[in-house]
Amino acid sequence: MSRKSRVKKNIGLTPGTIVYTGNKTIEEINIDVFNYTKTEIEEINLNLIEDSFKHKKNTSVTWININGLNDTEALKNIGLHYSLHPLIMEDIANINQRPKLDEYEEYIFVVFKMLYYDKDKKLKIEHLSLILGDEYVISFQEAEGDVFDTIRERIRNNKGIIRSQGADYLLYALMDAIVDQYFLIIEALGEKIEYLEEQLFNNISAKDLPLEIQNLKKEILKIRRSILPLREVISKLEKINIQITSKTKDYLNDLLDHTLQVLENIEIYREMLWGLTEMYMTNINNKMNEVMKTLTIIATIFIPLTFIAGVYGMNFDHMPELRYKYSYHILWGVMIIIFFGLLYFFKRKKWL
Amino acid sequence: MSRKSRVKKNIGLTPGTIVYTGNKTIEEINIDVFNYTKTEIEEINLNLIEDSFKHKKNTSVTWININGLNDTEALKNIGLHYSLHPLIMEDIANINQRPKLDEYEEYIFVVFKMLYYDKDKKLKIEHLSLILGDEYVISFQEAEGDVFDTIRERIRNNKGIIRSQGADYLLYALMDAIVDQYFLIIEALGEKIEYLEEQLFNNISAKDLPLEIQNLKKEILKIRRSILPLREVISKLEKINIQITSKTKDYLNDLLDHTLQVLENIEIYREMLWGLTEMYMTNINNKMNEVMKTLTIIATIFIPLTFIAGVYGMNFDHMPELRYKYSYHILWGVMIIIFFGLLYFFKRKKWL
Amino acid sequence: MSRKSRVKKNIGLTPGTIVYTGNKTIEEINIDVFNYTKTEIEEINLNLIEDSFKHKKNTSVTWININGLNDTEALKNIGLHYSLHPLIMEDIANINQRPKLDEYEEYIFVVFKMLYYDKDKKLKIEHLSLILGDEYVISFQEAEGDVFDTIRERIRNNKGIIRSQGADYLLYALMDAIVDQYFLIIEALGEKIEYLEEQLFNNISAKDLPLEIQNLKKEILKIRRSILPLREVISKLEKINIQITSKTKDYLNDLLDHTLQVLENIEIYREMLWGLTEMYMTNINNKMNEVMKTLTIIATIFIPLTFIAGVYGMNFDHMPELRYKYSYHILWGVMIIIFFGLLYFFKRKKWL
Amino acid sequence: MSRKSRVKKNIGLTPGTIVYTGNKTIEEINIDVFNYTKTEIEEINLNLIEDSFKHKKNTSVTWININGLNDTEALKNIGLHYSLHPLIMEDIANINQRPKLDEYEEYIFVVFKMLYYDKDKKLKIEHLSLILGDEYVISFQEAEGDVFDTIRERIRNNKGIIRSQGADYLLYALMDAIVDQYFLIIEALGEKIEYLEEQLFNNISAKDLPLEIQNLKKEILKIRRSILPLREVISKLEKINIQITSKTKDYLNDLLDHTLQVLENIEIYREMLWGLTEMYMTNINNKMNEVMKTLTIIATIFIPLTFIAGVYGMNFDHMPELRYKYSYHILWGVMIIIFFGLLYFFKRKKWL
Amino acid sequence: MSRKSRVKKNIGLTPGTIVYTGNKTIEEINIDVFNYTKTEIEEINLNLIEDSFKHKKNTSVTWININGLNDTEALKNIGLHYSLHPLIMEDIANINQRPKLDEYEEYIFVVFKMLYYDKDKKLKIEHLSLILGDEYVISFQEAEGDVFDTIRERIRNNKGIIRSQGADYLLYALMDAIVDQYFLIIEALGEKIEYLEEQLFNNISAKDLPLEIQNLKKEILKIRRSILPLREVISKLEKINIQITSKTKDYLNDLLDHTLQVLENIEIYREMLWGLTEMYMTNINNKMNEVMKTLTIIATIFIPLTFIAGVYGMNFDHMPELRYKYSYHILWGVMIIIFFGLLYFFKRKKWL
Repeated sequence: MSRKSRVKKNIGLTPGTIVYTGNKTIEEINIDVFNYTKTEIEEINLNLIEDSFKHKKNTSVTWININGLNDTEALKNIGLHYSLHPLIMEDIANINQRPKLDEYEEYIFVVFKMLYYDKDKKLKIEHLSLILGDEYVISFQEAEGDVFDTIRERIRNNKGIIRSQGADYLLYALMDAIVDQYFLIIEALGEKIEYLEEQLFNNISAKDLPLEIQNLKKEILKIRRSILPLREVISKLEKINIQITSKTKDYLNDLLDHTLQVLENIEIYREMLWGLTEMYMTNINNKMNEVMKTLTIIATIFIPLTFIAGVYGMNFDHMPELRYKYSYHILWGVMIIIFFGLLYFFKRKKWL
Repeated sequence: MSRKSRVKKNIGLTPGTIVYTGNKTIEEINIDVFNYTKTEIEEINLNLIEDSFKHKKNTSVTWININGLNDTEALKNIGLHYSLHPLIMEDIANINQRPKLDEYEEYIFVVFKMLYYDKDKKLKIEHLSLILGDEYVISFQEAEGDVFDTIRERIRNNKGIIRSQGADYLLYALMDAIVDQYFLIIEALGEKIEYLEEQLFNNISAKDLPLEIQNLKKEILKIRRSILPLREVISKLEKINIQITSKTKDYLNDLLDHTLQVLENIEIYREMLWGLTEMYMTNINNKMNEVMKTLTIIATIFIPLTFIAGVYGMNFDHMPELRYKYSYHILWGVMIIIFFGLLYFFKRKKWL
Repeated sequence: MSRKSRVKKNIGLTPGTIVYTGNKTIEEINIDVFNYTKTEIEEINLNLIEDSFKHKKNTSVTWININGLNDTEALKNIGLHYSLHPLIMEDIANINQRPKLDEYEEYIFVVFKMLYYDKDKKLKIEHLSLILGDEYVISFQEAEGDVFDTIRERIRNNKGIIRSQGADYLLYALMDAIVDQYFLIIEALGEKIEYLEEQLFNNISAKDLPLEIQNLKKEILKIRRSILPLREVISKLEKINIQITSKTKDYLNDLLDHTLQVLENIEIYREMLWGLTEMYMTNINNKMNEVMKTLTIIATIFIPLTFIAGVYGMNFDHMPELRYKYSYHILWGVMIIIFFGLLYFFKRKKWL
Repeated sequence: MSRKSRVKKNIGLTPGTIVYTGNKTIEEINIDVFNYTKTEIEEINLNLIEDSFKHKKNTSVTWININGLNDTEALKNIGLHYSLHPLIMEDIANINQRPKLDEYEEYIFVVFKMLYYDKDKKLKIEHLSLILGDEYVISFQEAEGDVFDTIRERIRNNKGIIRSQGADYLLYALMDAIVDQYFLIIEALGEKIEYLEEQLFNNISAKDLPLEIQNLKKEILKIRRSILPLREVISKLEKINIQITSKTKDYLNDLLDHTLQVLENIEIYREMLWGLTEMYMTNINNKMNEVMKTLTIIATIFIPLTFIAGVYGMNFDHMPELRYKYSYHILWGVMIIIFFGLLYFFKRKKWL
Repeated sequence: MSRKSRVKKNIGLTPGTIVYTGNKTIEEINIDVFNYTKTEIEEINLNLIEDSFKHKKNTSVTWININGLNDTEALKNIGLHYSLHPLIMEDIANINQRPKLDEYEEYIFVVFKMLYYDKDKKLKIEHLSLILGDEYVISFQEAEGDVFDTIRERIRNNKGIIRSQGADYLLYALMDAIVDQYFLIIEALGEKIEYLEEQLFNNISAKDLPLEIQNLKKEILKIRRSILPLREVISKLEKINIQITSKTKDYLNDLLDHTLQVLENIEIYREMLWGLTEMYMTNINNKMNEVMKTLTIIATIFIPLTFIAGVYGMNFDHMPELRYKYSYHILWGVMIIIFFGLLYFFKRKKWL
């Protein structure tokens, strides 16, 4: 995440001012429109916001997907056409907006985060806004490329029950597709932690481990922040009676369950990562202990021996031991006894 | 748990698609059916789902136990026959589903986890789904072999009150049998922790202790995740008035109590394990202190002595001490005094 | 606590089966019966359950105290006579049952834990069950010897208001006597922690401190588990309107307050114990620092000096210094300057 | 706090027995009585409880302040005269009673703790009980000397609105005076922590720091225990409609706010103290690192040099180097190169 | 924050006494008044409180901004003129007052904290009080210079919807301007933490890191304390129906959302900072390990070699090895083998 994107860019502006706070610039807004009933389907691709307005029909479910948030003028037009609240328009363009649900009289506004790892295994967080109105859904994305292809497929080929349901089911299907992706994130996290554990317990180049652990901690914090509010968002959705049918609520319940499962896993990974830092500390201390033992054993054995050798290297005129014929050999014997005696001592102390 | 089973396999599929996410493949589904009233009992074993349908009777309590979740076609048929919601069928086959209770108009759907240690002392978590309908219970298991034999015995021999109660009591009895098993898990955990404590405080090969502690921490996290949601599941059950009689609620209350007792023990073990990591750190530091003391004592005693010996090993032409007759003996005296003086010093510092 | 008592012994048995899970075997059940009104009192001691039945009168408050839970047949008889729910009878005999309150139509069932330290300063936890029915209280204990002697005295001598109150006040008085004992436990814990602190900060044989801290942590966890549920038990009691008079509720409120005070102290001791482990770590590190400083000072002073002595111990034919008359004395001067120079250096570094 | 005062002295006694659990013995109870209306004021000082009874008037607000709790007979008389519940009388004399509010039909009973540091900077906790009845307040203190002098002044000189308000405002004023004192406690705590921080980061005799931190932790725990329940006490007071007027409630709201502010500060100090222990650990480790570096640099430089000197101190008959004229000077050159080479090596490793 | 400002200065004073507890003294109070309707606008600057009273009109929205809290007499006059509660006046002047909302019949009283970093990058916390009455807002600041210039601009130039809304929207706009500033604080915090992380992992003069971490921890605690209560303040505002229109509530909802986002970030920074302390510890230990390894390798290699040299430096008359022609060369061979042998040993142990 670049430094610039961290801060709200619209400080001091009138509330409701539309400012795109992300960094994905596309030249032209790109709009997909789906119109479908149980029996019929129409799919249109446009580049002008204004064109999309006439494609909203009353007899079918309409899904208008808009890619590109940097053309704030176009966004403003949409807002005016669908009479969306200025604060909603601000939130659509503000990628720092946390997931939330706002209930208005004529529509529901939902913010979600799409999470995925790019090819460089870097975590990407994409801002997604959804409007559920009277038999239509409008989705706003930062750029093209999303997780909704399976849903498009299901609509085109009339797979599953999606074509026979209303716009609320479409909203659920979109959210479900996003939450499904979270399971991939969870799996990737699990693999990363297992990799760190392996490194730690097998001593393979564990130098960078603290940095990697710290980075993973930050990643988990970011993921958690993107997913945690969903719990409340979905619970709120389940309590709405106007736009959401009771049949869809069964599905939302299932979605909530999946979200909880994801969050549960995140908590477990947090605890495991925390334990890992502790294990790393333990590991260093264990190694230092090993190093110190080696030093101590060597020093304790050879320092006294060196002293003895030093004594008989002195140049006093009167050192009777120096004159005896076998004293050199006796001394070797003494030194060998000291050597093995100390070895035995360390063996018993379990240092060897 | 194999890497594959961690991730939801049905990402991107239509909600309600039945995908078995476990790895226990059985060739043929195996079905036990019990039909019992206070006075009569019928027990049938089948291999075809369709055969089981005709065994559901209205005048008796029926328990249909299905082993094997990999034949998704068969599961689909059951779902259609008993008009179970597609999401239920998905959850039955998805072994990653967390424990939960879903209330539908005509039946209650409950997911539980059976926990046990296999012969290799490895923790096994088995997925179990239960449907409580009008005087029938359907249970879905991954494979044969469960904890329900005592219940079968009680039904066959009309032991206890089970035969004179309705299907809700049967549901309770099944859940009770599972929760009973948790106490064995708890006992095994307690023994493992005691074993680690013994190892730690008796210094027996404590090398692998950090790894073992980390693994036990992960095990406790998994167990906790499987049991924690039961609290809510059972509380919800107690609030249901249609399928659950007030007499069974007394028993459910007791079951809730047992679950709380299990969870309480898990929390205590978590705290103990946490304390153990700390103790291990303390232990290493204590040992390192011991090692350093040994080194310091030896070095502090012999380094000055070696210096003195070195001085009189110098080859200056004019070193008057070298010439005196008793200087060698005097020097020995000095060195012995230094030796015992330092020993006394360390004694007073309580390093010895 | 012996290993056997940890696990529920009745795994797989029919719910409601009476199994004594403790290890106190008494040959004969021992029963005390009190019958009292404001003016009259009768006290009987029996060994047969059946005899006790006729002593229950309607015109007075009756307290039947039963010592010994291993005779499950006798327990069963009592259960039948007073038409107690089978699950209650199971809980009475199961010493692993946590404190709880069950409300039935005709009686209230309460489980408490009596805590005390035996002569060996070991924590003992005793299981106590109480039934409050229409003007009678039945208490079940594992063995003789309890904390109720002061209550017996008050009944016999008509001290305080106990004789003029109903059975609900008797129940309160019994619970109050137990909670009073908890204050002794709290005091003993406080003394133990103070003793550990003294040991830690005065360095008296602190070797076993980690083990003692770990053991005290476990003790506190057990005590907490025995007392924590009382909060809820007493709150529930205060909400019961049939068996509990509003006058007794004032007393229960006071009891709740005492329980909270005990729990508050336990939390404080937990935090203090936690801090103690940290202090111990700090202590070891401080000591190791001291040890390392000693070593470093000695080595830093003598290693260079020994090197110098070594240089002039070399046997080169041409070493001009060796020949000068005063070089030996000059060298001593140099070495003394180095010695005091380094001492001064360490002084300034505050290592001395 | 002396050891004796920690435990409830009245274990096993009838509930409601008055036992003074503190250690401040005064010979004679000392009683101040204030009677005031907006226009008139009467102030009396007595030594006999019975005398105070006649001074309670109905037409004015009466404040009876009683110093001395060890004369339990006198306390009993007060209890009887004002028909206070026996449990209240027990709580008044029991200085271990935590802060609380009991609502009775005719009066409200409040327990507070006065906190202050004595001249030796030791924390003192004083027990204070307040009874708010129909236009009277009775306050019970352990000994003379309190924080209410400003209130007496305000009553005597008709300062502020106190004389024109009822007894409920008097109760508020007393509690407000106590809470005001807490801010002094908070300030003293802040200074203590700052002092410890200064010591830590400036290395001034940090030897006793762990002990001082541990003591401060205990002090904070005690303070917190004395103040935390006030939150609930004041909230309860605000919900009472009989004795408390809505005008006083505005003031109570302000008092609650002050209490929250005090508690907030305590939490912040707790976190800071916790961080300080960590910093201390870091500090020791940093110092040890410094010590080890010194040792390692010295040893690494001189041990190889000493070895070289040792080699040429050997007495072999055939050591050609010894014979060359300049080998001694060459060797010095080599040793100087090694010396500076190693210095450069340590410089590059940033150890110097 | 100076030491003096920490403590409540008005201890012992009558509640409602106005005492300025800050340290910003301005000679003259400075007052800005805005009167605006959708079409008209009037802007006045005054120095006398009394002058401001006549500028409050009923047909327009009035914003009276008062800079300077040290003239308590002037504050008192305002309080009397607008009949504000004495406790409000006390809170306006008491800069230690935490953020809060008090609801009175005729007006709402809100306390906020303005946070910013001054040029020296020091955190400044400024006290701001707001009164929302019938179509007027009064704001009290400690000194001139605030974050409201953009709002003044919007009022003057009729930008946005502010001129067409009531006083409640003005209150919202002021609060929104303050919360907007928090995002700058958050960004600065993020940069500080990133800077510390960089320092830590790149080893750039990490000496002061513990002190900087501790200071940042304290800063975060202070920021958190200033922002945390806003959550409750805004929630309370949303529930007020008299002074707040439902249209403004949509905006307040948005404001609450921003506040939560700020708090979320603070929590994440707290966790990161905590992790950083741990990483620092790990880092020191890693370095110490490195140091110890160096020492051990050098000592382990050269101490035995020095011993050998010492042996052949002894002066025994009978040491046969000394006489052989090639023993010196053989010894060199042996020593070189030992040297490389030990190097190889350390290589295999991965210490090199």
